[in-house]
Amino acid sequence: MAAKEKTLEDLFHDTLKDIYFAEKKILTALPKMAKAAHSDQLKAAFEKHHAETEGQVERLEQVFELIDKPARGKTCPAILGLVEEGQEVMKDFKASDAHDAGLLSGAQAVEHYEISRYGTLIAWAEQLGMTDAAKLLKQNLDEEKKTDAALTRLAESSLNQIAA
Amino acid sequence: MAAKEKTLEDLFHDTLKDIYFAEKKILTALPKMAKAAHSDQLKAAFEKHHAETEGQVERLEQVFELIDKPARGKTCPAILGLVEEGQEVMKDFKASDAHDAGLLSGAQAVEHYEISRYGTLIAWAEQLGMTDAAKLLKQNLDEEKKTDAALTRLAESSLNQIAA
Repeated sequence: MAAKEKTLEDLFHDTLKDIYFAEKKILTALPKMAKAAHSDQLKAAFEKHHAETEGQVERLEQVFELIDKPARGKTCPAILGLVEEGQEVMKDFKASDAHDAGLLSGAQAVEHYEISRYGTLIAWAEQLGMTDAAKLLKQNLDEEKKTDAALTRLAESSLNQIAA
Repeated sequence: MAAKEKTLEDLFHDTLKDIYFAEKKILTALPKMAKAAHSDQLKAAFEKHHAETEGQVERLEQVFELIDKPARGKTCPAILGLVEEGQEVMKDFKASDAHDAGLLSGAQAVEHYEISRYGTLIAWAEQLGMTDAAKLLKQNLDEEKKTDAALTRLAESSLNQIAA
């Protein structure tokens, strides 16, 4: 008898664990980023996104419930690398006027990672007929897209100017 | 005398080294991904993007020339994490019909990382009045966006269906 073949359900579950780990990592990184930010506007943006991320983690826990699995993360090397890059910028540009521009760009790289992961998870949820899961994941995706757009506006309006 | 403060030019240069490292890493990863892909369409998509990536690396070398710096990469933990995640999927789903859906989604996460980095670099280049550098970086950004869109179409048209 052949070993049980992995399915799209397994891939969905693995990727859900990956983004769950990532969101929880972001939850611990955001207060440090808010503390490090020089500008009050960027601080406020990170604090706002921290509150949102708490809601996103809860939605992911609801998706775990929908597929009848325990809410458990799986080490996500991508988010660890992204967070490490952000920490490097905070260290190397600590005293620089370009600090916030670098910190903001690192946050946008994280947003893009999440946008990509949620896009994928939604496509698979729809493929698998999991309408309720898709709806919850779409709410998270919309918030990430809005956060990314808000960060772009902030960069354009002030931070890059200060840096230059 | 205070230590020389880092500037937006330094941040631009650091981030250019980061994406240069990332593109070269992708150049070595793509042939392995093409080899691993089950579907001929996905194989072809990776091969096409490999050829494009060679051109992108050359454009980055032109940007290094424009800022009068040697073309040199700087370890980018984010891309290492992203590639590691792709390798995990290739290993864990090797014999599965969901293999290509997972591989494709990993490639899209890489595209999103690059889209975010190029977006940032273009904004900074414009801020610094580096019109020629911005133009070269925009060409890379456009290619990454097209690749991401092509992968989405491929996922929608066939791969996710096969997987489910």
